[in-house]
Amino acid sequence: MFKNNLNTTKGFDLFEDQYIAEQSITTGSNYMFGNGYMGYRGTHPDDTKEDYVATIVTDTYDKADGKWRELCNAPNGLYTSIRANGQKVSPSQVDIQNYKRSIELDHAILVNEFANDVIAVEVERFASMDQLHGLVMSYKVSALEDGQIEIVTGIDGDVWSINGDHYSKTEFFAEKGCLYGHARTKEFDIELNVSERMSFVGGADYEETLIKSEDRIMRHLSFQMKKGMIVEVHKYVTIYSSNDVDQPIKACDELGSQLLAQGYDQVKERHCNAWNRLWQHYDIKIDGSLRDQTLTRFNLYHNIIHTPTHALLPVGARGLSCQAYQGAAFWDQEIFNMPMYLYTNPEVAKNILMYRYQTIDGARTKAKKLGYRGAFYAWISGKSGEELCPDFFFKDIITGRKIRNHFNDWQIHVSSDIAYTIWRYYEVTDDKEFLLGYGAEMMLDIALFLMTRSFYNVDKRRYEFIRLLGPDEYHENVDNNVFTNYQARYTLQKTMMVCEELLQTNPDKLEALLNKLEITKDNLETFKDIIEKIYIKEANEDKVIEQFDHYFDLEDIMPHDLAERLIDKAEYWGWPNGIAVHTQVLKQADLIQLFVMHDDFDDATLKANYDYYEPRTEHGSSLSPAMHAIIASKIGYKDQAYEYFTKSCTVDLYNANKPISGGTFIGGIHTASCGAVWQMMIFGFAGFSVYDNVLHFRPTVPEAWDGYHCHLHHHHNYVDVHITKTSMEVTSKVDNNETLQIEVGGQRYNLDPGKSIMIHLNQVEMV
Amino acid sequence: MFKNNLNTTKGFDLFEDQYIAEQSITTGSNYMFGNGYMGYRGTHPDDTKEDYVATIVTDTYDKADGKWRELCNAPNGLYTSIRANGQKVSPSQVDIQNYKRSIELDHAILVNEFANDVIAVEVERFASMDQLHGLVMSYKVSALEDGQIEIVTGIDGDVWSINGDHYSKTEFFAEKGCLYGHARTKEFDIELNVSERMSFVGGADYEETLIKSEDRIMRHLSFQMKKGMIVEVHKYVTIYSSNDVDQPIKACDELGSQLLAQGYDQVKERHCNAWNRLWQHYDIKIDGSLRDQTLTRFNLYHNIIHTPTHALLPVGARGLSCQAYQGAAFWDQEIFNMPMYLYTNPEVAKNILMYRYQTIDGARTKAKKLGYRGAFYAWISGKSGEELCPDFFFKDIITGRKIRNHFNDWQIHVSSDIAYTIWRYYEVTDDKEFLLGYGAEMMLDIALFLMTRSFYNVDKRRYEFIRLLGPDEYHENVDNNVFTNYQARYTLQKTMMVCEELLQTNPDKLEALLNKLEITKDNLETFKDIIEKIYIKEANEDKVIEQFDHYFDLEDIMPHDLAERLIDKAEYWGWPNGIAVHTQVLKQADLIQLFVMHDDFDDATLKANYDYYEPRTEHGSSLSPAMHAIIASKIGYKDQAYEYFTKSCTVDLYNANKPISGGTFIGGIHTASCGAVWQMMIFGFAGFSVYDNVLHFRPTVPEAWDGYHCHLHHHHNYVDVHITKTSMEVTSKVDNNETLQIEVGGQRYNLDPGKSIMIHLNQVEMV
Repeated sequence: MFKNNLNTTKGFDLFEDQYIAEQSITTGSNYMFGNGYMGYRGTHPDDTKEDYVATIVTDTYDKADGKWRELCNAPNGLYTSIRANGQKVSPSQVDIQNYKRSIELDHAILVNEFANDVIAVEVERFASMDQLHGLVMSYKVSALEDGQIEIVTGIDGDVWSINGDHYSKTEFFAEKGCLYGHARTKEFDIELNVSERMSFVGGADYEETLIKSEDRIMRHLSFQMKKGMIVEVHKYVTIYSSNDVDQPIKACDELGSQLLAQGYDQVKERHCNAWNRLWQHYDIKIDGSLRDQTLTRFNLYHNIIHTPTHALLPVGARGLSCQAYQGAAFWDQEIFNMPMYLYTNPEVAKNILMYRYQTIDGARTKAKKLGYRGAFYAWISGKSGEELCPDFFFKDIITGRKIRNHFNDWQIHVSSDIAYTIWRYYEVTDDKEFLLGYGAEMMLDIALFLMTRSFYNVDKRRYEFIRLLGPDEYHENVDNNVFTNYQARYTLQKTMMVCEELLQTNPDKLEALLNKLEITKDNLETFKDIIEKIYIKEANEDKVIEQFDHYFDLEDIMPHDLAERLIDKAEYWGWPNGIAVHTQVLKQADLIQLFVMHDDFDDATLKANYDYYEPRTEHGSSLSPAMHAIIASKIGYKDQAYEYFTKSCTVDLYNANKPISGGTFIGGIHTASCGAVWQMMIFGFAGFSVYDNVLHFRPTVPEAWDGYHCHLHHHHNYVDVHITKTSMEVTSKVDNNETLQIEVGGQRYNLDPGKSIMIHLNQVEMV
Repeated sequence: MFKNNLNTTKGFDLFEDQYIAEQSITTGSNYMFGNGYMGYRGTHPDDTKEDYVATIVTDTYDKADGKWRELCNAPNGLYTSIRANGQKVSPSQVDIQNYKRSIELDHAILVNEFANDVIAVEVERFASMDQLHGLVMSYKVSALEDGQIEIVTGIDGDVWSINGDHYSKTEFFAEKGCLYGHARTKEFDIELNVSERMSFVGGADYEETLIKSEDRIMRHLSFQMKKGMIVEVHKYVTIYSSNDVDQPIKACDELGSQLLAQGYDQVKERHCNAWNRLWQHYDIKIDGSLRDQTLTRFNLYHNIIHTPTHALLPVGARGLSCQAYQGAAFWDQEIFNMPMYLYTNPEVAKNILMYRYQTIDGARTKAKKLGYRGAFYAWISGKSGEELCPDFFFKDIITGRKIRNHFNDWQIHVSSDIAYTIWRYYEVTDDKEFLLGYGAEMMLDIALFLMTRSFYNVDKRRYEFIRLLGPDEYHENVDNNVFTNYQARYTLQKTMMVCEELLQTNPDKLEALLNKLEITKDNLETFKDIIEKIYIKEANEDKVIEQFDHYFDLEDIMPHDLAERLIDKAEYWGWPNGIAVHTQVLKQADLIQLFVMHDDFDDATLKANYDYYEPRTEHGSSLSPAMHAIIASKIGYKDQAYEYFTKSCTVDLYNANKPISGGTFIGGIHTASCGAVWQMMIFGFAGFSVYDNVLHFRPTVPEAWDGYHCHLHHHHNYVDVHITKTSMEVTSKVDNNETLQIEVGGQRYNLDPGKSIMIHLNQVEMV
């Protein structure tokens, strides 16, 4: 149906009817399923290590190579291969018949279909959204002719790992009809257990023998089928680690028995129901373009499956799609992944922020190590919150020499971004308990860090931040980066508001907090002084804001021309001596990003800066296109908005990014980009933003569509929104408890619980 | 006599008796002569462009290639070749007889000797120290057999230039028996004139015809010689540019006629007398080692000939030995070249400082351009004082990509070094007129610059300098470099002392100065605040001072092991990604440099830091060995001191540095290293320093010597010093006007004019 061997039937699924082996790294990510606890790559049932099979399990951080700590890939409990009359029947075979691989986005079920002259196979696999430790498969064989069938299914422990073998010890054994894979990790001695139970459904008698080797245990099932006969093998795999529970084997057995007892249909039904509930929050329905509908849902889907909600764990930059980027969180988590949750299902947003609270000691350790006070959150944050980014991140591929990038010490906006998000969370949820109970401590400690990282310029009588790396990572070592300084001021402002609130409502708590964090009254005065005197660069006469000091003095060249200077196409464009460093070419535009996050700038400023920076932006980050789509939409650049929308939606689907760079695997799903798709729809096309307790909309609809539907909430009042080219309808759920204020086109409307408001082009109609 | 084809007869000359063509770049520099107005490379009389002949003339800065502004190489007025019986007789010929090239260091006379079977030739050339625009030659031919002799001599305009052809127009012509070369430069249209007059001395009748082409004019002299006969051709060349005088041709003629009238012997005598007067200030006589005597005088000689004293012009990093480094001044000028003048002939030191005063507007322009106030002196300073260092100084020889070095914007100590020198000049000369009339303005403007370049760390309650490049140029982008911060504090301290003095003696002048420089009373308070609160890193428990923030965290590897990481032997070790950047390996040791310049550190500190830094120093700068010799001598490391002394003396003589690097010509004489040789002798071996108006000595004598003699002054009281292994004698000149205080071995002595003091080992004897 559309590009790259991609098809859909209903806009809530994605399928291919041809297998392209060379794309298996990316398709394995695209077709994957998961449930926030584990991610299972969308491979074929009989795929192995070489085909990038993976069951990535949260909270199994371990360092195997002495350098990179990453999540473990559990033994594959769903491995299944089949032979008919002695002939292998595999979906990977070039002459396979009726090949189809499909991911049902609505219920996160991976379906594989394939056949030869004797049998047709249909496989369903999913990770239960109802029972997060359950991994389930239905393997259905239909006989097209009479035949002798052999199935090998069990647990394959020979797994793919990008940075060394994580297991110091593995054991595979059978007991009471169940199979077990038991592994212990090298660094932390985490126990990771996989159990498998099977039921064989259908008329055939089968003979089972066990095949056991050092790194696998398999059932060999052998049976006769008559033409027209159908059998199903149901597998109930359970996974627990010693970080999840004290007795992981016991937990595996308990859940395994439970699932086996429920049976496949019931397990699947409960799983689907759980997904149905999720989509009530997250779904965005698009009318008029099945392609764009699919693209959008594909991204929302991935944002969901990659976000842990069962524990306080980071949202990985590549989620659970592989081990790349250490399964760790970047600022992406708050700024890209989180808005979808914040505005539709705030409990998940809170969970994300509680992860930051739980890991604040890591941020304190980092600050101290670098000579600062307070909390300096990591650029790469894993379980403990300590900085996981090594000093030498990239290699110069021309010289082979390591490069000292300063992601880990100069990219200070990460901390402010967390404070910003805490405040946004509070604005949207009114969750004062969280704000004062947890947010205040984080904000104060971030503010303290910012104070110790700032400098006062006595001559210019202003505070400055020196030696920065903003979101535009091609320009390290810059001063007074507007994004960074703006976010710092915002952090300090909101922190002082929180202090004020505490002073009024709970002065003892404030006192205790300040004591704990060793923040003096003098320090608070300095916070205020910084708010007043921090240097935020102003727009020039053309309304363009210089991204950082002396940016305009850099060579002005466009990305396309600049690219001609590359010696090797794969070389890094940035610090210390990449081709972009001394030019105005950006990786992503800081100002555009800032405009998405703050409503403080008028349209003329947005337009002037978009016009200036957009042509100079190389979009070397997958985060970049979505932000451009949002601002393009706001300033009426509808075509560009739609182009960037498409580009952003297909970052993974169209393989826009290389899975391996400089010898490092960086493939997998760009989860931040997935989260950004929701933002493009809501902040961009719908023009939604909340300020002064009012829900603002500036709705637009791309030419290609008729309209779209989405769900939002404010202070736990849930609304459905339907936007078309001529109207916008907002419906407030009947069990809401507040009258919502909505503003469209400069007009303010009150919306009571249970009511709808229909807004025509500049015309209002109460339904 | 010693290494590298080098010989001496009397320790005041240097000669070679074999010509090695491949070394012509360096030998041309080593054997050069000059007089501060011009430098003439020590080539053969018939050498041309290909042999790196050059007559570098001061104050002819011009940019030919659009990138590098440099001094011009004037047409060669001394070109002379000879034939005997139709056969060329050239010193460059492999079969030439009695070859000798000699530079008489006492009188700066280049002597070439060579012969074949028919004739013997002896050539003397010099640039008159008495008449700075005169360039003189005696070309003496002795007939060994009868022969027909042809000499071609005149002006050769086809000159070597390292960065493009500087002349937009050249003319060569003869008038009234004189030859003329007339050139106009491309950028500034400077008129550069060379005139030549000749006299032919000796019995022979000669026939003269003129040979003229586009870029040369020559006399063809033809005559018969009988065996035993001697003729001499005397040439009187004069050089003037339109930057020297309004009518350069007229000036050339006037001086030319005058020299011709005086005749060779008188011209030479006056020249030699002028040199004799200079050596009364500068000479250091060494007893017991003819080699070290020659090495020392070689360096003193070069420091003299490369220092312009006739006008306010910079001392070039390569002096007048070639066009490299733009004939411009670095901090080397004050810190390396100048001490010899300051302590022996202070008028020259004053001239150097007046050059900085004259060019202060260039420093102001630079400060302003970078967003600061006050005077930020250039890293490379030419005639105007504006920054000549381009942003992209080196090329990465592996990738061919240009490198953004930050010599021009982060190496701020240059300005403080000038202020430091102003104060030192005042201490040694008591020249209050200069201090208050010129020094005060420079110091205040430098202090202002420093204030605007500093930051106040509110948390740590201290001022810091961020993003620096110290003398150790392998580590750019560092904070609180001790050398930089120490020099800044010194500058501010002395500036405030000058202000205090002005306030007492001439408050109106102070008021006027502050108004002119727009320095407020508040600013002065900030100066004081910085003096009090500037962050100067303290020694650790081992008495080692960390060179800059986090230096000790860098990889600790020794230079020899580090060198193994080189991909190309010629690659730059420093910023942005050279092999030394992330290690503790230094180009030159900042702390060692600081100890040479300040007497504030005890011996234990000197020793601890020498022990720490010396093994980690790669000496990638020719400035480095001498500073190590001085500190090694102070702490009693006699062998190391002597090794570093030898190394430093022979930077040029032993070709220790490559003349071409990364395609750029950087050959020529390392004038700073020449100046440093004087410092090694006086600050190092003699242990001389002046503080609290007392002349302190800590004399030592290298094992290989018997002793040495030198000349010093304090407040214009001149003394002769003679140090042996057992005694030290100081003689105060009879026309001195003060009783000098001298301290040796903790004992203080008074020395009246006309008296001597003889100090034995711990024993005093008045003579």
